[in-house]
Amino acid sequence: MFSESRVLCPQLKSKIMTAEQAAAFISDGDTVGMSGFTGAGYPKSLPRALADRAGAEHKAGRPFQINLWTGASTAPELDGVLAEAQGINMRLPFQSDPTCRKQINNGQMHYIDIHLSEVSQYAWSGFLGKLNIAVIEVTAIHEDGRLIPSSSIGNNKTWIEQADKIILEVNKGQNLKLEGMHDIYYGTALPPHRKPILMTKTDDRIGDSYFRIPPEKILAVVETDAPDRNSPFTPPDATSRQIADHILDFFQFEINKGRLPKELLPLQSGVGNIPNAVLEGLDTGGYKNLTAYTEVIQDGMLKMLKSGTLSSASATAFSLSPVALEELNDNIDFYRERIILRQQDISNHPEVARRLGVIAMNGLLEADIYGNVNSTHVMGTRMMNGIGGSGDFARNGYLSIFVTPSIAKNGAISSIVPMVSHVDHTEHDTKVIVTEQGLADLRGLSPRQRAKLIIDKCAHPDFRDRLHDYFERACATGRGMHTPHILGEALSWHENFERYGKM
Amino acid sequence: MFSESRVLCPQLKSKIMTAEQAAAFISDGDTVGMSGFTGAGYPKSLPRALADRAGAEHKAGRPFQINLWTGASTAPELDGVLAEAQGINMRLPFQSDPTCRKQINNGQMHYIDIHLSEVSQYAWSGFLGKLNIAVIEVTAIHEDGRLIPSSSIGNNKTWIEQADKIILEVNKGQNLKLEGMHDIYYGTALPPHRKPILMTKTDDRIGDSYFRIPPEKILAVVETDAPDRNSPFTPPDATSRQIADHILDFFQFEINKGRLPKELLPLQSGVGNIPNAVLEGLDTGGYKNLTAYTEVIQDGMLKMLKSGTLSSASATAFSLSPVALEELNDNIDFYRERIILRQQDISNHPEVARRLGVIAMNGLLEADIYGNVNSTHVMGTRMMNGIGGSGDFARNGYLSIFVTPSIAKNGAISSIVPMVSHVDHTEHDTKVIVTEQGLADLRGLSPRQRAKLIIDKCAHPDFRDRLHDYFERACATGRGMHTPHILGEALSWHENFERYGKM
Repeated sequence: MFSESRVLCPQLKSKIMTAEQAAAFISDGDTVGMSGFTGAGYPKSLPRALADRAGAEHKAGRPFQINLWTGASTAPELDGVLAEAQGINMRLPFQSDPTCRKQINNGQMHYIDIHLSEVSQYAWSGFLGKLNIAVIEVTAIHEDGRLIPSSSIGNNKTWIEQADKIILEVNKGQNLKLEGMHDIYYGTALPPHRKPILMTKTDDRIGDSYFRIPPEKILAVVETDAPDRNSPFTPPDATSRQIADHILDFFQFEINKGRLPKELLPLQSGVGNIPNAVLEGLDTGGYKNLTAYTEVIQDGMLKMLKSGTLSSASATAFSLSPVALEELNDNIDFYRERIILRQQDISNHPEVARRLGVIAMNGLLEADIYGNVNSTHVMGTRMMNGIGGSGDFARNGYLSIFVTPSIAKNGAISSIVPMVSHVDHTEHDTKVIVTEQGLADLRGLSPRQRAKLIIDKCAHPDFRDRLHDYFERACATGRGMHTPHILGEALSWHENFERYGKM
Repeated sequence: MFSESRVLCPQLKSKIMTAEQAAAFISDGDTVGMSGFTGAGYPKSLPRALADRAGAEHKAGRPFQINLWTGASTAPELDGVLAEAQGINMRLPFQSDPTCRKQINNGQMHYIDIHLSEVSQYAWSGFLGKLNIAVIEVTAIHEDGRLIPSSSIGNNKTWIEQADKIILEVNKGQNLKLEGMHDIYYGTALPPHRKPILMTKTDDRIGDSYFRIPPEKILAVVETDAPDRNSPFTPPDATSRQIADHILDFFQFEINKGRLPKELLPLQSGVGNIPNAVLEGLDTGGYKNLTAYTEVIQDGMLKMLKSGTLSSASATAFSLSPVALEELNDNIDFYRERIILRQQDISNHPEVARRLGVIAMNGLLEADIYGNVNSTHVMGTRMMNGIGGSGDFARNGYLSIFVTPSIAKNGAISSIVPMVSHVDHTEHDTKVIVTEQGLADLRGLSPRQRAKLIIDKCAHPDFRDRLHDYFERACATGRGMHTPHILGEALSWHENFERYGKM
């Protein structure tokens, strides 16, 4: 059907142009909503052209910056090139790009770090201002104008609906057989018009396989042929495996106690080495018919689907190594029956996360002895990536598990500190903290009880005595014994690191 | 029907006994779930008898303490007498009692501060341990055993279902005409068996008017005749009125912008002077057919229902002055058509709060220049009351508004500080902060933009220059410019207060 061209709709065929031509539609000061979530499904060609334009304008002494909204993180070809060209004034809702990060932390770029489930409703409500243009990668365009989405959905439906004008990138590099894997839910609305989301299982389909776009909103169609940013898979290291083992023991304990079913509950898992180790562990642990309700399909989940450990997985994007991508493409008919890609306001929706009872597993930068978690700020001031969907799942899921190695920078940093230097997840939301040292189950414990457990179970031995000492001296101050602290010392570990390079 | 007795069920009539006899069923170490939410519907007589028992046991050299779970805060006759008798080992999920607070903060009592919507699921899941006995106040018992709930519902349904044994207090002091005002939803379940909660309007009824109890679980029925703790109404002071005016201006602005309908969206409002001032302002501001989806029906809401400003209100409890209670009792047929009392896992449910698009208005103790909010901890260590339902609504509602006078303790404390000493609501969840000085609309702003706005709009003039100075010097450190801080100084205002009695 798409043998000659990926653009079958005649009305849109006539709008095919180069990225440079399309980039001319974007003006200085525009707010642009681009596709892209964890390095999947982002536009491959227009951002480069736009960056060149920004560069030329700056050279000519004219300002040129956009406000950039996406699903989540993207890739060097989007965030990287635009940031290098000083082309971004404001960025939301998540990023993980080194150049962006640098500009955010030296004050050049404004960054708004938003719960991923909430971006769509804020865009709809007008709280974030007007969205001028959407730039969306798709896999192909049917004759009747229906769009086959790409390897991520993210906020694309919202950008398409909210932007005044749309630029499409049609990427020949995406597998045509993605068709049918997506589930675009058209039942969302602003209050007071919202209805229940009638989903009770992770694999319920509640929407359509295609985006609908009024053709008159489309300014340009750009044809590309490029792969997603697919990073090589790093096998889990010993630390990750130890963390995974603690979590697997905990799951077994909970099953034995009758507090989790033997199929567990839908798994949500952050991206990275530790989650992949947990997935590997589950895959060899005798589990069957698990499910996933998460943001991202990683390598580990494909393996689990293949082995039958996982019966289905719901997400908003892929994040695969080149090897895993090949596996997906080779067996896409198998995976299409088991994977659903949804828009991120549904993949992360509080209503659905609460109903399904998601088990949320996310990384952290540091936790304090009372269970407050910092996921975003290095030494309280410098943005790492962002909160992403961790807050959506940790607050509304059934169990929130936070994972981290107990030390960082070769032992210069303890991940367990007297007081975190920034809070993304409060003591009210943290149920379980795990390091390679052990697992602290905080449910039903008061702050002082939590402190002892977190220090004993999670802190690295090199820091354990100092943490106990802090806690005991805090208790001895005679001030508040609910959450004892020595305020003048609570952030001194971070100060030490800034001054001496070691906590 | 209930002219002679409030206990018509023959099987339960035979279990009528004194509070002292009933208290004998409770043992040292028991976990007891009692009714009660904001001083409404708590047991009036058994806690006193239990406290006496604890006192006698202690005198005899024997230990006697319980773990006490409730809906939220109660009254001196419950929290007060038990705490004074040293009868509470662990308390959850919320309290506001002076004696409890003292014991929590001097380390005598463990306290777990939990989002009010989550208590029920934790009790069901077994995460908090076994519930031994429930002590529940009801209004009356029908011949067939159906129970008419009292002036609050809170966690009563959960305690009744989860406790091994139940003691009922039947309070003649409660109005029999409360019958029919309650809506007990029996559709809850643990995952993976949860279904959508099919509510799309604040006044949808989705349950029954009665509690169901297996009669064999009932150990005792105690008859009482006592009023709820109904505190006199204090008219809003000038500061509260100024705060209310800023919020009313904001609502009008949002309506004019087309971002809120003219009936607003369902209002959730914390208890106290400022919320009452906002309600008063709305009542005289020409609004019609507003709705409320909140925890507590306060004086202001009755007035709004009477005037037609409010068409209906959903909550889990009353918190009325004696005058307002008289008004309620005199016109209860009118109010019964307009008020629904629900269990707190529904009144605060994330699914419903998100769907209805609640406007959440809650108090705070301190906010920092970046919008992080401390609702619970005085100077970072001492518990005031607890987070209550503020997290349920602030995270999942449509708009989260936090309110506070800009100073406390006659100006010794600034409510706006460089860094909060404890975080209950993160920068991700705080949309609007209001003091009598002004309103800071934080939507769509990066941290540095927020800082300037919060200082200029919300801080008291006596502290404004020092806050600007802190922010400017933090920016000048050359460290992270995303959220600039001087770590060694960030909590110095709190230290000053602890040392010198002034920030």
